[in-house]
Parts: sequence; structure tokens; C-alpha cells
Amino acid sequence: MTQKMIDAMFDRSVAAFDMFRRVAGTNRAALLRAIAEELENLGDTLIKTLASETNLSQTRLVGERGRTIAQLNMFAALVEEGSWVEASIDTALPERQPAPKPDIRKMLMPLGPVVVFGASNFPLAFSTAGGDTASALAAGCSVVLKAHPAHPHSSDLVAEAIQKAARRTLAHCSKAPEDIFIHLHGGNDISLALAQHPAAKAVAFTGSFQGGKALFDAAMTRPQPIPVFAEMGCVNPVVLLPHSIEAFPEALAKQLADSVTLGGGQFCTKPGIIVGINSPAFERFAKTFVVAMNAIQPALMLHAGIAEQYAARRAHVLECKGVNLDEQSVLSEEPKNSLLGQPTVAYTDAQTFLTSPLLSEEIFGPYTLLVRCRDKAELRQVIQNLDGQLTATMMATEADMNEHADIFDDLTQKTGRVVFNGVPTGVEVCSSMQHGGGFPATTDARFTSVGTGAIKRFVRPVCFQNVPDNFLPPELQYRNPLDLWRFVDNKWKQ
Amino acid sequence: MTQKMIDAMFDRSVAAFDMFRRVAGTNRAALLRAIAEELENLGDTLIKTLASETNLSQTRLVGERGRTIAQLNMFAALVEEGSWVEASIDTALPERQPAPKPDIRKMLMPLGPVVVFGASNFPLAFSTAGGDTASALAAGCSVVLKAHPAHPHSSDLVAEAIQKAARRTLAHCSKAPEDIFIHLHGGNDISLALAQHPAAKAVAFTGSFQGGKALFDAAMTRPQPIPVFAEMGCVNPVVLLPHSIEAFPEALAKQLADSVTLGGGQFCTKPGIIVGINSPAFERFAKTFVVAMNAIQPALMLHAGIAEQYAARRAHVLECKGVNLDEQSVLSEEPKNSLLGQPTVAYTDAQTFLTSPLLSEEIFGPYTLLVRCRDKAELRQVIQNLDGQLTATMMATEADMNEHADIFDDLTQKTGRVVFNGVPTGVEVCSSMQHGGGFPATTDARFTSVGTGAIKRFVRPVCFQNVPDNFLPPELQYRNPLDLWRFVDNKWKQ
Repeated sequence: MTQKMIDAMFDRSVAAFDMFRRVAGTNRAALLRAIAEELENLGDTLIKTLASETNLSQTRLVGERGRTIAQLNMFAALVEEGSWVEASIDTALPERQPAPKPDIRKMLMPLGPVVVFGASNFPLAFSTAGGDTASALAAGCSVVLKAHPAHPHSSDLVAEAIQKAARRTLAHCSKAPEDIFIHLHGGNDISLALAQHPAAKAVAFTGSFQGGKALFDAAMTRPQPIPVFAEMGCVNPVVLLPHSIEAFPEALAKQLADSVTLGGGQFCTKPGIIVGINSPAFERFAKTFVVAMNAIQPALMLHAGIAEQYAARRAHVLECKGVNLDEQSVLSEEPKNSLLGQPTVAYTDAQTFLTSPLLSEEIFGPYTLLVRCRDKAELRQVIQNLDGQLTATMMATEADMNEHADIFDDLTQKTGRVVFNGVPTGVEVCSSMQHGGGFPATTDARFTSVGTGAIKRFVRPVCFQNVPDNFLPPELQYRNPLDLWRFVDNKWKQ
Repeated sequence: MTQKMIDAMFDRSVAAFDMFRRVAGTNRAALLRAIAEELENLGDTLIKTLASETNLSQTRLVGERGRTIAQLNMFAALVEEGSWVEASIDTALPERQPAPKPDIRKMLMPLGPVVVFGASNFPLAFSTAGGDTASALAAGCSVVLKAHPAHPHSSDLVAEAIQKAARRTLAHCSKAPEDIFIHLHGGNDISLALAQHPAAKAVAFTGSFQGGKALFDAAMTRPQPIPVFAEMGCVNPVVLLPHSIEAFPEALAKQLADSVTLGGGQFCTKPGIIVGINSPAFERFAKTFVVAMNAIQPALMLHAGIAEQYAARRAHVLECKGVNLDEQSVLSEEPKNSLLGQPTVAYTDAQTFLTSPLLSEEIFGPYTLLVRCRDKAELRQVIQNLDGQLTATMMATEADMNEHADIFDDLTQKTGRVVFNGVPTGVEVCSSMQHGGGFPATTDARFTSVGTGAIKRFVRPVCFQNVPDNFLPPELQYRNPLDLWRFVDNKWKQ
């Protein structure tokens, strides 16, 4: 693909944005619902194409399609209702001394064309018509999407569904309504060219640290930097507190083994380290955990690249002094390039963990590291040493919470989501979700890529001073024609 | 200042943050009000020290002190009321199929130590105890402030007032409550060391493009990048539409001359270009404008560096082919290093403007450029060619608005604040203000540095999943003990 072709695509995307940003929320909602319908209409063809390209089971893919459709409908409901624009109004005080107070009205408006990169591990929910696309379109942005090279045909099918929905619902607005969503294939050079294109106004990415960081650096060194929302890698620590592990060693082991291996461990929220204080109960947990992990069948990984990386990074970690496999868990002789990812538990002690930065890095696949601490002081050191995380989980009884409030507080400082007595895999799609944490979990901990909050990534506030009512956007007009919740003279009103 | 000394300061700031982030909103409010009182208590000493260091009039400084105190009290009221944390709650649905819905609760929490740089042009309102400090403290962050070298003694006085207020209101929380605000002096090398320190979690800056961009680059190339809110340079275009200029040529000329020269033209919202379509009325406006500008006495600039820069950059622009002074406006022979900034109007045509990027750059001081367009098409070209702006102003009658809706729309795309029939100088401090625009006006158009919204720069959302009520922050507890407005199951409630 030449630079000229990329320029031409962005010209189309800019023209489409110029149309789409004026489209009312109700019409954007119609588009999002139409996309959901067109996805559904692809039926078995889509599921089968996906299954052949991703090695994921049809059951899983059908479930993920449900989530993807629910996300599209959630954003449709959000923009149809409309209050998400955070309309804020300060009315004029013409008599104020020493100077009159002007009328000021503010709302969120879309940024412009957003570059989205499809993710391989959720080929529907975080890919072509996934949360990034849905939230960018909901915001009123156009989207330029680069398909993930692991599922190109599925991505083509979904892109056609989106464009069909655009033609169906936006034909009255434009001659080329499908340009609100431009779909392309390409390698890493194209990715960087997209992030650096002057017409691109934001980037959304879910994937590896290397990929996300390269996009971030490319965007920050542009003449005009743009926001990058890259969800990259983290280890999602799980902390096992003493009373909890004493009470439920077997149940915790089973629950965590399922979470570590869910989807072949290819979830960004997979627990990558499990930390606790050494005790007989911790040993019981560890024994049961290894048995449970060994009992889980190796899963077919998403693609050969991921399977190779998994084997290589796991081997690298297991070479570290102080990191060991349990005697019961024997790594089978895997043929090179095998697509199977074998569930693996490694052990280490706190001191080794604290002195080996490698052990804090994500290993994408059904692997986790048990970190044994001598005492609570070491446990806190391990937690405080962690980078930013998407999630942090505490297995704790009421007594644990009373005795370890400091650990709960430490974890809160490190993460976007604190999970209590549950597993971090399975990210609820709702208004209160925060899927974003400190670097390197994401490049911008102030935003979420899951839930309705994701729309806030692609907008900026604009305020209007003394603009006559009939020229204001309806969201800000005196009579509140859209019946929004608004913040008027420092009070919420509808 | 050695790296060791900087490390020691951040150690104190981190310890203070660890205390301060737990302090209730009501107590943070007490601190902010105490700072306001201590500023007031400095009385004439502060005003006189400021006047001697900044060349600003006592009247202006007394006014600015009022604004600074009002800002502190505004943030006090905001955090006392508390709903700014955007508490959002999705309650559990344990019976949901195929999986139970967990209880998820989200709120905004402070980032950590914030590095703030005092600004020279508002030595109170944007400096030591200005909006950046007030909003960072309101958010629960500690502050490390580097004094602007142009008013070091004033900055010392204000810093002592802040620290006195901290000792007065936070003594029960800590042995060194004054460490929530660490004050230092230093050059550019120190500025970069502060932005790159691992303990710094955000940067706030108001000043030159070079300064802001250097901090941005330093922060983005850290191992863990942090947000930078730099408010830099822009030209705040004013568009004169035909009917308006026909109706009020003299009044517009007077109003704009006052705005361009207010505070010696040393406002970030100073109109730096004034654009209109050539016509006899535009000529009448231009003539009156030059007379009005010439009648305004040169002001003493803030310091020698700014005065020199002003003279040099103005001379540079006036050397451009196609840029001219009006025959009536003769630049007096200014002695080198004079502190006087002479009000200056330059003229150019649209084609020269469009082909000379230099003309789109800010000249800090009482200077503006009149851009004459042949027709509306040229006017739109000029507007579309502009970079991101803090403000854009339209002088327009109802008829103009009806005929030029496209120009209103173009301006909205370029700016954080659209002003209608007024001047952009004088930034109202309120909830609906947006003081932030596209690059290079600011480094992050998604945030404001003026108004209550400024607090959002220094926080991130954290969500809690299935955490027992008694361990949740009060903002998220079931009974809503702080009586906040919250978003519960997708509805606003109090």
C-alpha cells in the first residue's frame, strides 16, 4: 500500500467524519443497531470463518458475538439517550460587578478519524466491530480499521456488515456513507503510517507491549501529537490472604486454574502472578492448584506466532535461577511450532521476584507464577514493586480485610479494577467498568476501553460563549429539546 | 540542585500524597479555604512584592488576587460537595444467565505528586497558588512547584502561605503536612529533571511553546510516560463578518484594541489575528483600529526577556514580504532592552497568510495581525488552515450567522471556546469553561486548565468489583453517606 493510497483513504474518512459528526444521536444509534443486526445476519458463515482463523470454539465465538452485539446496542442506547455529552451550562449574570458574567455552555464533541487496530484474542468483541469501533462511531468519529492479520477473512465479513449498515441507515446523509468505516489490511509499516497520518486524531489498540508502545511513540513524535489508547500487557496479580486460603484452599485452586486457562490464557486479564504468605494452607492450595492445572487440556492457541511466543517466553522464565516447576508438572515435549499451549505453573520466592524484572512481564497464554512470601512485609514489597495493572484481585475473608486494609489500599493504587473474591477474567460491560490501568497495562490510565466510558476517549469539550440559542447544538439549547441530564448553574437537572 | 536533592523532595512529596489522598473532601476544602485566607493575610506585602517583580499595576494585582482566592474557594466548594468524583454504580444481578452480574462501583482517585510550573503572566492566578495548584490539591494530589524565575520572592511568600495553611489544617494527619506543597527554584535543567522523575505522576505548565513542548517530550520518553497539561501558544482568531462590521466598525475597533493590549497583550487568549473580507466597512474598521491601537500607551512588559522576545518576533514578522504596518502607525525607536511593549498592528492578505507559517505563530505582547480576504472562500481557507486554538471569536449579526453557519462550524472544529460578539480575553472561572484546545494551543485538548473541570486532569477512575460495603470508599457505599449525585444502574440519583 502506497502513501498515496493511505492519503486517499484518510481523505474519504475526513469527508465521512464531516458528515457523521453532524448526525443526531438517534441516527447514530440506528447505525449501531443496524451493525448489530448485520452481524447477526452473517450467521454461521461468520462463526465458521472465525473458527477456522482463530482456533476458538464455536461455542466461545457464539458467546463473543452475543457480547459484541450487546456492546453495539449498549452504545446505541447511550447516544440515543444523549446525556453522555456532559452538557454543562453557566447562565449569564449581566449585572455582575466588576464585569458581567457571560453565558457559557460546554459539551463533548468528536475528535475526528480514529485509527483502530483489530485484536487477535477477541476477534469480535475487541476487533473489527468491537468496543473501540462501537465507541468511536457512537462518539461521532469515523473509523479507519486495520484488520488483525490473524483473521483477515472474518474481518472482511464484519467490515462488509458495518458498511452495509452504514448504507442502510445513513444513505440520506451522504453519497458514500460507508466511508465512516474504512477497512484495510497491512503490516507493521502500515500501522505506523496510520498512527502518523496528519488526518488521524486518535489511536485505539489492544495487543502486545511492543506493538502498543511503537504506536504510542509514533503518535507522540508527530508534529501534532494525538491520544493513543493502547491496552498492552500486565500480570493481573491475585493476592491470597491467610484466612481465605486457610478456609478454601481447594476451591481457590480450582477457581484460579479455570481463570488462568480460560480461552487458552489469552485474555488481557489473565492472572499472571498469584501471591501469598507461605503456610501449610498455602501449600495445600499450591498442590491442588498444580493438579488442577495439569488436569486441564492444552488449548489450541490463536495462531502460530502466539504459540511460539508462549513457548519461548515460558522457557526464558524457567531458565531464571529461583524459578521452578512443581515436580508434578512435567512439560510435555512439544513439537516446535505446535499450536498447543500447555497450562503451566511456575514457583518462585519473593526475593527472586523482586530482583528479576522479567518475572513481572506478561506471558500471554495459560501460564502463571506462584510467588511465595515469607511474611506480610515481603507480600507488601511484592505488591508495591508491581507496575500498573488492569486488575488486582484479593482473596480475603472479613478477618483478612480487617487485618490487611493496607494491602487492599496498595492494590488500589496499582490498578484500574480491584476484584474481591472472584476472578479478573470476564470483564463486565457496563457504565461502572474501568478497563485501563497504569503503564504498561495501558498507555492512558485515565480512560477505559470497556463499558460506556470508552466513548470518552474520542471526544473533547468545546464551550460556547454568548452564542444565540438558535445557533447552539440542541444539547445546549435553553429548552433542552433532547431532554438530557445537564449540569446547569452547578446543579444536575433534567 | 543535585539529583539527590530532587529525589529527597519527591520522597517527601510521595509521603505527603500517601497521607493527603486519604483526607476527606471536607478537610481538603478546609485546606483550600485556609490557603485563600493566608493569601489575603499577606496583604500589601504580597501586592508590593509582586508589583516590583512583574511590572503589573497594583490594581491589576489586587484583581488577580481576588480571582485566585475565588478559584481556591471554588475548588473548596467542589470537593466539599463531592459529586465531582463521578461515582458510578452497577448493582449485582446474582441470578443473571449465563453468568451472574457482579457489583461494580467506580470513582475518580488522585494520580500522585503533580509537578506544576508557575507562569509569569498571571503571577497569582496561574502561578504558585494558581489554578493548577488549587485543582491538584483539590483532587488529593501533592504538588511540587517550580517558581517562575521572574517572580521568585512573590512565589516564596505564596508558598509559605500554602504551607502555613497546610500546617493549620492538616496537622492532625501528619508530622509534615506542609510537604503536600514543595516549592523550589531552578532553571530549565531542573524543569526537565522534575518532569522525568519516576515519582512525578503529571505535569501542569502554562507558558511558551518551546517550554511546554520540551516538558511534553521529556514526559513522553520516560520509561513510564505521564500526562502533560501544557498550555502553550496560539493566535485566538477573531473573525469579523460583513453585516457586523458594516453596523459597528468603530465599536469593534475600540473593543478589539482594548482586548489586544489588555495586560500588555500578555494573555494566552489575546487576539493575535483578526480576519475579515475586504470592503469599505472593513477599511473603516481598520482605520479606527489603528488609531485606537496607536492611542494606547506602551505597557511595561513582565520582564526583560519577554520584552526582547516581543521586539524580536515582531521585527521578524514585519520583514515578511506582504506584511506591512499601516502608514499611520510608526514604530518608535525603542532602545534595546526597553521593557516597553508598543501596541502594533500589522496587515497582510490571505494569500500571504496562507503561505507563511510564521504568521500563524503567537507573538506574545500587544501585537495583532489584520488579515484581509478577497471573499468568503478565502476567509474559510484562512480559518481551515489554522492550528488548534484556545479560543475563536465571531463578530456577527443574526444575518451573518444565517449566511455563515459554515464559518461558525469551521471555528468550532478548531478551538476549545467559541466566543460570540465579545472578546476572548477574560476567561470566566466556572464549571462550563473550556480553556484548552488542539495542539499547539495545549498538549491535551481533552482537558481544561480553568474552571472546576481542571480537577479532572489529576485523577483516574478506579473500579471495585464485589468489594464489601464497609471496605469501600464512602463515595461508593450503599447508603451514600456523603449524599453525592451518583450514576446508579444507569440513572442519576442523589
